Amino acid sequence: MLKGCQNECTGGGCSGEATKHVTESFKASDLVIIPATTFKEKPDPNGLVFGTVFTDNMLTIEWSLASGWEKPHIKPLENLSLHPASSSLHYAVELFEGMKAYRGVDGKIRLFRPSLNMDRMARSARRTTLPSFDQNELLECIRKLVEVEKEWVPYSTAASLYIRPTLIGTEPSLGVKKPTKALLYVILSPVGPYFASGSFSPISLWADPKYVRAWKGGTGDCKLGGNYGSSIYAQQEALELGCQQVLWLYGEDHQITEVGTMNLFLYWINEDGENELATPPLDGIILPGVTRQSILDLARNWGEFKVSERYITMSDLTAALEENRVKEMFGAGTACIVCPISKILYKGKHLDIPTMENGPQLTTRFLNKLSDIQYGREDSDWAVLVS
Amino acid sequence: MLKGCQNECTGGGCSGEATKHVTESFKASDLVIIPATTFKEKPDPNGLVFGTVFTDNMLTIEWSLASGWEKPHIKPLENLSLHPASSSLHYAVELFEGMKAYRGVDGKIRLFRPSLNMDRMARSARRTTLPSFDQNELLECIRKLVEVEKEWVPYSTAASLYIRPTLIGTEPSLGVKKPTKALLYVILSPVGPYFASGSFSPISLWADPKYVRAWKGGTGDCKLGGNYGSSIYAQQEALELGCQQVLWLYGEDHQITEVGTMNLFLYWINEDGENELATPPLDGIILPGVTRQSILDLARNWGEFKVSERYITMSDLTAALEENRVKEMFGAGTACIVCPISKILYKGKHLDIPTMENGPQLTTRFLNKLSDIQYGREDSDWAVLVS
Repeated sequence: MLKGCQNECTGGGCSGEATKHVTESFKASDLVIIPATTFKEKPDPNGLVFGTVFTDNMLTIEWSLASGWEKPHIKPLENLSLHPASSSLHYAVELFEGMKAYRGVDGKIRLFRPSLNMDRMARSARRTTLPSFDQNELLECIRKLVEVEKEWVPYSTAASLYIRPTLIGTEPSLGVKKPTKALLYVILSPVGPYFASGSFSPISLWADPKYVRAWKGGTGDCKLGGNYGSSIYAQQEALELGCQQVLWLYGEDHQITEVGTMNLFLYWINEDGENELATPPLDGIILPGVTRQSILDLARNWGEFKVSERYITMSDLTAALEENRVKEMFGAGTACIVCPISKILYKGKHLDIPTMENGPQLTTRFLNKLSDIQYGREDSDWAVLVS
Repeated sequence: MLKGCQNECTGGGCSGEATKHVTESFKASDLVIIPATTFKEKPDPNGLVFGTVFTDNMLTIEWSLASGWEKPHIKPLENLSLHPASSSLHYAVELFEGMKAYRGVDGKIRLFRPSLNMDRMARSARRTTLPSFDQNELLECIRKLVEVEKEWVPYSTAASLYIRPTLIGTEPSLGVKKPTKALLYVILSPVGPYFASGSFSPISLWADPKYVRAWKGGTGDCKLGGNYGSSIYAQQEALELGCQQVLWLYGEDHQITEVGTMNLFLYWINEDGENELATPPLDGIILPGVTRQSILDLARNWGEFKVSERYITMSDLTAALEENRVKEMFGAGTACIVCPISKILYKGKHLDIPTMENGPQLTTRFLNKLSDIQYGREDSDWAVLVS
């Protein structure tokens, strides 16, 4: 885990002030755990608003160019003390991940495909010139944090503990440059059922090409802060127009890309008369979601219909609606698992999507399958035990 | 300055807990000034690295949806205490401005067209759903801060005091939404001469369409953090290829847009044989720079050559280079005023730009004119006295 000398070394070893050993990754075995001694009351899992209540402890790991990674700490949740010039606050040198810990029907706590989050976090770090780290070591640190906070994992199969790994530039200077200081931290938040009593609430979308979420040559395929803050203005306009989320379009041909902060799936009879589950391809403007990947993996494994990563335009969709070829349309993400779509406001017209009229059979099947794995009702390699 | 009741009021006045008066803008007359009592040593203006040294005091103004703006404070520079879920750290709900205070040859301190910065800051706030404020009140608060820190304005006509207004979301929750808490703050940093001894150092650029700075429907025309952090990766690649900055291209036809964090100007004989100063138009992907606007205003006022906000593609440029029609090319921004360009690496070829061979006459003329105004060698409405 130690990088070699920064300067050339001769056989006799390194010497001189310029020679430093820089820690290339922190290690979970170095964890310093000094947890909170006072405890907040745990909220009723049925009344939670997403991401508003946090647990008693957090994980923090500091990095500097000079010394590399410091030892990881688990300590009481507290405010960060940041230099007002910090590059995260001026230039959005920042990234995050979203994952969950689930308390299973057997009482065991599980993570869902966490290595996919660690892989994506490493890619985001590279794209934003933040330091790299050993992904297994971070996962083990997160596992320990969840273990410390295990009583915060809701005793419910309709709730979970949301995990928010975050990596920010703390460079205390105003040059737009690769940071020489950074902070990795993880906070935890119990989150309630996305759909009350397990039933689906379908959402309505606003599709207008005037706002574009991400573009080729940009950062839409990484989980960087800048992709999200810039979306809020369009989301406000969607709400004003009576829609709940934005359906993000791309290009002259109005390609369908993502919905709100979720990936998008269309289950339909395609142009060639085939039953097809389609989602936009990972061409640089789509976030490679863990739920997206899992839905593709499940559907391919079932082998019951065509599964495609392909372009879908608004005119493909409207033609299919006119010809009654659309079965279901849904968003997919860690927060809701799957989220059915019932309406799209596009060019001043409300398009009715018959997702709910069709069960929704496939959407429900994915929800049940994934939650069976997450809550331990079904054995799977995708579930990783915390304790 | 007070918004009416949030709820309906009857003639007898407002009553009940839900009725609040929310402050729509802070006021400079409410400033609470408790300045530092210990002072850092002021650095030699000749040895400064941009944005690394800060003055003794800062301006801070807190906002919440519930109460509106609090009183502005001038107080010793200190670290910010931020909730680890703050929306600036996760979703880049953040914006900034860049301006300067100059100590003139008459000993007076001046700002340069500061109302343009205030206007742009207000537009950035709107785009990122951060709270609005009275721009004149902020300008007056900044003026007071510079007055408190006036000894930090370098005694040099080759240096200045950089002013960094910043507005960040401090919403302490993880929903991607309009923030209910925010912090406006201003820090100051003495900055040295961009060009040592006033002479120009021309820069080399790397032009590759694989990274795109901004796009239609995005936020490239606002000064949001997310536009900057995402550029560092490309900047690193430029450095590895031996170039100093990125020349940002756009679209299939490789339009020239900006350079590094500057606007771009081309002075040439155009396709119609006219002497023309050209810069890309404000079509949504270009930052409306104060220096850009000032150069356009000056050149139009001179009326000696055609001045155009127009598209320029890489093939327009290469054709003009082949036909010896290019005179000068330069970046324009608050940091350097103008920055001559000597080389562009494009499609594996080094293009020589004859900026320096041509004086550079026009680039130098802009530099001299603008610095004459900034340092009080010439009277102008563009210079606003601090004290």
